[in-house]
Amino acid sequence: MFEHLVRDALREDLGRAGDVTTDAIVPPGLPAKAALVARQPGVLAGIEVAAAAFRIIDPSLVFTVDIPDGGRTSPGAVVARLAGPAAAILTAERVALNYLGHLSGIATATASIADSIAHTKTRVVCTRKTTPNLRALEKYAVRCGGGANHRFGLDDAILIKDNHIAIAGGIAPALARAKAHAGHLVKIELEVDTLAQLEQALALGIDAVLLDNMDLPTLRRAVAMVGGRAVTEASGRINLETAPAIAETGVDLISVGWLTHSAAVLDIGLDIAA
Amino acid sequence: MFEHLVRDALREDLGRAGDVTTDAIVPPGLPAKAALVARQPGVLAGIEVAAAAFRIIDPSLVFTVDIPDGGRTSPGAVVARLAGPAAAILTAERVALNYLGHLSGIATATASIADSIAHTKTRVVCTRKTTPNLRALEKYAVRCGGGANHRFGLDDAILIKDNHIAIAGGIAPALARAKAHAGHLVKIELEVDTLAQLEQALALGIDAVLLDNMDLPTLRRAVAMVGGRAVTEASGRINLETAPAIAETGVDLISVGWLTHSAAVLDIGLDIAA
Amino acid sequence: MFEHLVRDALREDLGRAGDVTTDAIVPPGLPAKAALVARQPGVLAGIEVAAAAFRIIDPSLVFTVDIPDGGRTSPGAVVARLAGPAAAILTAERVALNYLGHLSGIATATASIADSIAHTKTRVVCTRKTTPNLRALEKYAVRCGGGANHRFGLDDAILIKDNHIAIAGGIAPALARAKAHAGHLVKIELEVDTLAQLEQALALGIDAVLLDNMDLPTLRRAVAMVGGRAVTEASGRINLETAPAIAETGVDLISVGWLTHSAAVLDIGLDIAA
Amino acid sequence: MFEHLVRDALREDLGRAGDVTTDAIVPPGLPAKAALVARQPGVLAGIEVAAAAFRIIDPSLVFTVDIPDGGRTSPGAVVARLAGPAAAILTAERVALNYLGHLSGIATATASIADSIAHTKTRVVCTRKTTPNLRALEKYAVRCGGGANHRFGLDDAILIKDNHIAIAGGIAPALARAKAHAGHLVKIELEVDTLAQLEQALALGIDAVLLDNMDLPTLRRAVAMVGGRAVTEASGRINLETAPAIAETGVDLISVGWLTHSAAVLDIGLDIAA
Amino acid sequence: MFEHLVRDALREDLGRAGDVTTDAIVPPGLPAKAALVARQPGVLAGIEVAAAAFRIIDPSLVFTVDIPDGGRTSPGAVVARLAGPAAAILTAERVALNYLGHLSGIATATASIADSIAHTKTRVVCTRKTTPNLRALEKYAVRCGGGANHRFGLDDAILIKDNHIAIAGGIAPALARAKAHAGHLVKIELEVDTLAQLEQALALGIDAVLLDNMDLPTLRRAVAMVGGRAVTEASGRINLETAPAIAETGVDLISVGWLTHSAAVLDIGLDIAA
Amino acid sequence: MFEHLVRDALREDLGRAGDVTTDAIVPPGLPAKAALVARQPGVLAGIEVAAAAFRIIDPSLVFTVDIPDGGRTSPGAVVARLAGPAAAILTAERVALNYLGHLSGIATATASIADSIAHTKTRVVCTRKTTPNLRALEKYAVRCGGGANHRFGLDDAILIKDNHIAIAGGIAPALARAKAHAGHLVKIELEVDTLAQLEQALALGIDAVLLDNMDLPTLRRAVAMVGGRAVTEASGRINLETAPAIAETGVDLISVGWLTHSAAVLDIGLDIAA
Repeated sequence: MFEHLVRDALREDLGRAGDVTTDAIVPPGLPAKAALVARQPGVLAGIEVAAAAFRIIDPSLVFTVDIPDGGRTSPGAVVARLAGPAAAILTAERVALNYLGHLSGIATATASIADSIAHTKTRVVCTRKTTPNLRALEKYAVRCGGGANHRFGLDDAILIKDNHIAIAGGIAPALARAKAHAGHLVKIELEVDTLAQLEQALALGIDAVLLDNMDLPTLRRAVAMVGGRAVTEASGRINLETAPAIAETGVDLISVGWLTHSAAVLDIGLDIAA
Repeated sequence: MFEHLVRDALREDLGRAGDVTTDAIVPPGLPAKAALVARQPGVLAGIEVAAAAFRIIDPSLVFTVDIPDGGRTSPGAVVARLAGPAAAILTAERVALNYLGHLSGIATATASIADSIAHTKTRVVCTRKTTPNLRALEKYAVRCGGGANHRFGLDDAILIKDNHIAIAGGIAPALARAKAHAGHLVKIELEVDTLAQLEQALALGIDAVLLDNMDLPTLRRAVAMVGGRAVTEASGRINLETAPAIAETGVDLISVGWLTHSAAVLDIGLDIAA
Repeated sequence: MFEHLVRDALREDLGRAGDVTTDAIVPPGLPAKAALVARQPGVLAGIEVAAAAFRIIDPSLVFTVDIPDGGRTSPGAVVARLAGPAAAILTAERVALNYLGHLSGIATATASIADSIAHTKTRVVCTRKTTPNLRALEKYAVRCGGGANHRFGLDDAILIKDNHIAIAGGIAPALARAKAHAGHLVKIELEVDTLAQLEQALALGIDAVLLDNMDLPTLRRAVAMVGGRAVTEASGRINLETAPAIAETGVDLISVGWLTHSAAVLDIGLDIAA
Repeated sequence: MFEHLVRDALREDLGRAGDVTTDAIVPPGLPAKAALVARQPGVLAGIEVAAAAFRIIDPSLVFTVDIPDGGRTSPGAVVARLAGPAAAILTAERVALNYLGHLSGIATATASIADSIAHTKTRVVCTRKTTPNLRALEKYAVRCGGGANHRFGLDDAILIKDNHIAIAGGIAPALARAKAHAGHLVKIELEVDTLAQLEQALALGIDAVLLDNMDLPTLRRAVAMVGGRAVTEASGRINLETAPAIAETGVDLISVGWLTHSAAVLDIGLDIAA
Repeated sequence: MFEHLVRDALREDLGRAGDVTTDAIVPPGLPAKAALVARQPGVLAGIEVAAAAFRIIDPSLVFTVDIPDGGRTSPGAVVARLAGPAAAILTAERVALNYLGHLSGIATATASIADSIAHTKTRVVCTRKTTPNLRALEKYAVRCGGGANHRFGLDDAILIKDNHIAIAGGIAPALARAKAHAGHLVKIELEVDTLAQLEQALALGIDAVLLDNMDLPTLRRAVAMVGGRAVTEASGRINLETAPAIAETGVDLISVGWLTHSAAVLDIGLDIAA
Repeated sequence: MFEHLVRDALREDLGRAGDVTTDAIVPPGLPAKAALVARQPGVLAGIEVAAAAFRIIDPSLVFTVDIPDGGRTSPGAVVARLAGPAAAILTAERVALNYLGHLSGIATATASIADSIAHTKTRVVCTRKTTPNLRALEKYAVRCGGGANHRFGLDDAILIKDNHIAIAGGIAPALARAKAHAGHLVKIELEVDTLAQLEQALALGIDAVLLDNMDLPTLRRAVAMVGGRAVTEASGRINLETAPAIAETGVDLISVGWLTHSAAVLDIGLDIAA
């Protein structure tokens, strides 16, 4: 069900006049072989999206996956092989690589955090800070990298943040309104900044707590206070350096916005076979 | 003409059930004031896109721009102010910030390179390595950051790369086919990896040359060889550290893929007024 | 965010040639007043959708709501009043009424069940058996009628049904796989047909149980067995006659497919003022 | 040409995260056989729409029709058989059944009226009171049930109703304007409430008359007055009880809004083969 | 309801990078006045479509119509006046003129035929030979030019052509099948090439006959044979020279494909006020 | 990537009820053979677009091309042959022919001009005066006819016209702003009406000049003045009669709006095999 996104991106790149360079230079029937080759170590995501770009331009093109999504790449590793018209390969190349590099970059970033906390039971999750109109694919890339997904949208679950609490006039009324409104399959999470707030939330009953920007000792005490009565999620300034210590506090989840909004692409190129 | 993209992103975030948290907690008529506040120094891009997100959710909302696109931010600087229903502000917040942070991140990255080469006549340009379906907005962000735009798509101009040359059987036949095919308003650029190739291209006549992955001495000699007969563009491994020396070779343009594919977001948040 | 659906329905009704009857007979500038009038007692839903149909045809038309969504109608009750071009009123009439009648029919059906179980703490919920491409509006109509919403789609929550259990090879493996896969804000509900299955599910821990097609004594024992450890939902052959007794068993929810797939429209007409 | 509607409905059901239950529990490659089984007697409509839902999710799935559209079902009758990935079958099930049940419900309702008047020459027709954005499929379902179609939209033919007559200032000017405006392939029908109006219409010449809400003796006299000079259509409060007597008055058509706006679904389920 | 077509055409013309000439040269705030001026005599159609193009680019632009659709133009006649940002006027100009010139060209062609047969009772009608995806606008332009509309599509009415007759095995079976299938508001027209066919059709009863490619004497006899029992339509090689004589045979309609498929544009330009 | 346009045109023609004539008369399974046959000499364009129309209606239909795009037709020449269901052939016929006739008409018009100037080195180019939403296909048709393409849209290149010059306050400031704004692959063309303007433009440096509405002696002197320093394009009142003399002045290009806005269709019909 992502094919229409690839089609849109091809239209964006081809414009009205199409690939004028290839049209000018590459003979229509000329066959070619090519490979998608990783230039960096990382984790792959989006190989079927890349395949779709080539197949939309020419359905006869044969695309063979060597490293499936979730697999690890190394510099020079062949990710997939292509056989088909040279023109189609060159025309679809950029769109295919833009998707593949972007999604693999997210998977790689996720895996780096996941690896760094692998000695704990904590899992890394993404946020709603995603690239507009790419959310489902980016959340998929997070899973490829070994992460888990937070909400897919505003309609997935209730997440009560500081502004909601302020408007409601406190945690108790905010939570009461949320519980009255929530369907029976809708979970409720609450953002708390202090242990006093946490105590209040636990007393009222809550599915999950977002422990925002707490220092390590506070986080440790928060986890202890919760004692398994709710899922604990730490957020705020989490990166490769800080993640292990935060995970060692025992929180269930650490949520990291930059997985989806600021991860660099994974460098993957296309080599035409000699 | 970007409004439909914002509408799509709002649909993506709202899903079928909408903002269940806000619906549960925030009284429909409650008015609020808020501000978009930068958390980092940078260059702004996309303020009208952010405004559109809020206005689509509630056309009565008043959005006042304090720092226009292209303006510099500092931590704590108010970028824009909002007055309108609290519910609409909270519901549109994430989509507005996702666009604004993403585009401002690109503008900021561009400006950092542009600043680093400001003592030269060289300009920084972006590439086609953009996020799928966001190209026009990302190219706009590059301009906000003081960069210039390369091709918007495969149909804009002819850019003959190594694979095209290999298929054509050399620079001469590739260029001949390109010139025969090109419309009278279509420029032709050619990627060269060596000075020998450059000599050949110049002899045949060319609008621009892409000097790919050349070391500094070679680049300097290339610029000298061209002698103003074509636009010179350097590419490959260009970053904040390497850009000044590359620019000092006298190339007209340096093209940098990571401006659009790997720039981190500029951190901008929304504060509800007390 | 529903306006595009109304626009589609107007295009469906107007076809290529538009309202040929009105074009032939009604002078373009002629003003008129009209009222949407209920012909039956019921509960209203969709008045803003109806308003949109008229406003899309002519933005100058004034539409005044007398009975808001969720309000009760009686035969002859004026639901809304219109003032504007007679031609626009006649052209938009059918689309407006088709939406309003359909959604109010669902609200009315929901209210009839909700009223019948008002002496209990049980709530009525809808299902995913909705009219294709009208789900969000139909779920909204259920809320207007005093019901609550079940899942909006397959991605909202995990609902393990008999076929999933059969494929997994039992409740235990099905539940284990679901828990391993589920995000921290995703609830899990399990369909059980027997008390033995229920016992198993409760032992493993579950958010909600769907008690399918149980007779009243079994249902009562099921509710007792659960003892508040999970949300209980009864389903199967629930209608106005059976609902009260089922609710009196103490289940938390009764889910009723026909609210959305088989409710008759609420008869609402348009009267042009003399 | 209905495939895009099915695709939209699948997107509506799958949301951003897809079928999380099936993803969690059903192994990707697992094959299954299943059957669509009627739970009620009725008339089938939409079997190809249901097939499309399964095939869009997995093109390799084999779908075999046992009862084609227009065929009669009985409780337990196999309507179609499926062989393919278990996951695809479960994921597409609800959308397929929502279309099939809705359309077959309309066909069944139509057939019930058609059967009740089979001893007369009268035919049952539907109206424009259809579910928004499903009109062409619903009109098709009416034909599957043995009914005929009235106008597909406002642009199909001229149907002059009471409001048009009032605005025009009488039947004569309304009809004159309609005849002057109508293309040569556009028929004109006129709604009449009294025999006096009917007389006037017949004198002026008309293709069809809509005899609205007349009692049986009046209807009989109307049919006699028309004497074959126009198509006669009776409307208003027509149901299974009243249809036979109305048809026995000799009217050519009876039009029934509830066929499309209020028919209950035909209960059809999906059984996975043991 | 045509605004989306104008929006599509603007996207087509603006591409990804927009109006680079105007962006480069015209100061954003600069106000201007302009006029749409006819360069030729003709009949106007599409002035509101042109207005939409300007208003979509800048809603603040004031567009004043001097000659409404259906009005006659002369060289130099001001068709409409514009006041607003110079940049918006220049950016929207081409799309506005492309629509206006195309539709006015059709109106003008239609009027030329209509004028040439004004001394008869015959009317000129268009066909389904229209520009893809512009049919409703082109049929509207025909009406602006004083013509009438034939079918808007394959679903409007039954038109039995030579291929249908051949497949059915003759006029009688073709007509029988058509009558059995047609709804009560669907008219039936039949193409006849000979008077023998016409006689057969009239004996069976028919709403309209398409007298294809008959010479004038045959046409005259055909009209006499019909004697008012059906609408008569002449088609084939009808142009300004042949139309009057064909109309003088007494046929009700002459249908002319080139009105919509081959009419030259009406030359209308945009003049910026000094 | 043009398939969606064909699909839209089929929806436009089929409406809601489809091809009622064919549904009534042609048995569903009946096979047929047919041919697309030219009725006129001309140049073909759009044969794959026509093929798509038939294949969308029935993917099993076999479509064999006899004359490819760019090939010459003569009266009676078979352009393509079809084998498949008779119903599908008749249903798709009009849309296929509307595209094929329209595009071939443009190719034919282009070829007529191209032929008339074949003794010179001048090429004929199209303009942005195209039919809304058909630009890419129409530009393709121009190439089929032996012409070249001018800008595909406002974003392709900078074309400074009289209004831009007037607003900028002269050629020098207009050109200066354009050069400052233009990307390195964007060419700049300038419209000049007099030799004085031309002199100014050449002194400043320009890629191409549009010599608008100059008489032959002036045009000759303009070409001489340019002396190869810029591409020369003549425009204004160019037709079959005037083109040869204009080309003989030595201009590089003549641009002709009517190729795309006013060319008559090439008459191509569909014959069902006996």
